[in-house]
Amino acid sequence: MDAFLLIGQSNMAGRGFLNEAHDIDTSRIYTLRNGRWQKMFRPINPDRSFSGVNLAESFAEQYSIKYNVDVGLICCADGGTTLDQWKPGGLLFDHAVYQAKLAQRTSTIAGVLWHQGESDCSEDLYSTYQPRFEAIMQEFRKQLGLYDVPFILGGLGDFLGNCSVSPKVKNYAHINNALKSIAAGNEMTGFVSAEGLTANPDNLHFNAHSLYEFGLRYFKEFDRLRKTDWDHDHTDTTDIKRSKIELL
Amino acid sequence: MDAFLLIGQSNMAGRGFLNEAHDIDTSRIYTLRNGRWQKMFRPINPDRSFSGVNLAESFAEQYSIKYNVDVGLICCADGGTTLDQWKPGGLLFDHAVYQAKLAQRTSTIAGVLWHQGESDCSEDLYSTYQPRFEAIMQEFRKQLGLYDVPFILGGLGDFLGNCSVSPKVKNYAHINNALKSIAAGNEMTGFVSAEGLTANPDNLHFNAHSLYEFGLRYFKEFDRLRKTDWDHDHTDTTDIKRSKIELL
Repeated sequence: MDAFLLIGQSNMAGRGFLNEAHDIDTSRIYTLRNGRWQKMFRPINPDRSFSGVNLAESFAEQYSIKYNVDVGLICCADGGTTLDQWKPGGLLFDHAVYQAKLAQRTSTIAGVLWHQGESDCSEDLYSTYQPRFEAIMQEFRKQLGLYDVPFILGGLGDFLGNCSVSPKVKNYAHINNALKSIAAGNEMTGFVSAEGLTANPDNLHFNAHSLYEFGLRYFKEFDRLRKTDWDHDHTDTTDIKRSKIELL
Repeated sequence: MDAFLLIGQSNMAGRGFLNEAHDIDTSRIYTLRNGRWQKMFRPINPDRSFSGVNLAESFAEQYSIKYNVDVGLICCADGGTTLDQWKPGGLLFDHAVYQAKLAQRTSTIAGVLWHQGESDCSEDLYSTYQPRFEAIMQEFRKQLGLYDVPFILGGLGDFLGNCSVSPKVKNYAHINNALKSIAAGNEMTGFVSAEGLTANPDNLHFNAHSLYEFGLRYFKEFDRLRKTDWDHDHTDTTDIKRSKIELL
């Protein structure tokens, strides 16, 4: 089983309306429940009563098809959370690390999917987003031995410019610049654009259709990074996985 | 916040049909999600796609009314699991302990609700249920510092005698005898009878109405044990809680 850790705020938790979910092949997709892998069922990240379709669903479907393996999702995203709430030693960080450690007993973590930033759109927060995020990412990599796996960071949607629920999110472009800069400046870290994706009527949350598309984009970027890694190491993916297991 | 840890198999996870749920006041009931307390929403223990109404819902409602406090539920039950799967060092035990430790950062654990045994109804398993359970309970108490809080054990339903899904559960009375013996032989450990309670059409899972009633019975037994503790210590519940916090 190849596993992925999902962390971030509501758009990583998934708020696509369940009755608008794409019909995907879930037969090889699992989620971690009570430390054990269970067949995927929606919502995969039940952080709130209104949790819904998640971008990792189409990501996992593509992964299972391309690599012909079962995929496990460790769903630890939490709606409305700020970057500072994800600091090492906090509840969200410690919870996610422990879930990932349980998953590592029975799987290999192949990547981390991150989407967050809407809660950090005020000037004092977006201006320091990069160093604060990098410190958190480094600690996730360290505590979980994930030095050589991709972290994929998704951009915020342009629809935030029309969001009346939370006026500060109009500054979303600053977060996107920070995310791009993080991806450019760190090994095995990628940025995925949300350009053209659309939202629920709240203009805050990606809709189910766009989450499906977003998951495909996350996969494309993941695959690009893994391929880069493959070229660099002159080794095949089996060896990459073996080295990961030995690290843990 | 006073918290309760829910552990066991499917009838602790809750399989009452959601459209048959009693209308209870959930305003003071929370569940732990990603290490943080969130307003209760059903299903509270989403271990499987068919998870439903849970007996802790009416338990928590009664508790919040009687003690005038918010109640937090740490939902770690997992369907179909055997007692041996709950051994210390296993995924379920370690997951539940870590969830409880996260909860202890922001609440006081006031009790543990257990319902399990259907998966241990074969003769080789029910005959050794008591010592195996006691070892697990002792380790939960030790790792979480829960020496002076009630463990409430619920009995298996008489409808299991008519269950065709799992023939071995016809031996359920042996598990009930073991549970009664555990409660009689251990401090702050109580047994709650399932007498008269009824099931879903599967004759395996308590229905929503019976889970409501079962939660009231769990609360009555919890209250009896806490009252006994109160009499013994000649102290009030505030002091009991304070001593618990100091233990942790």
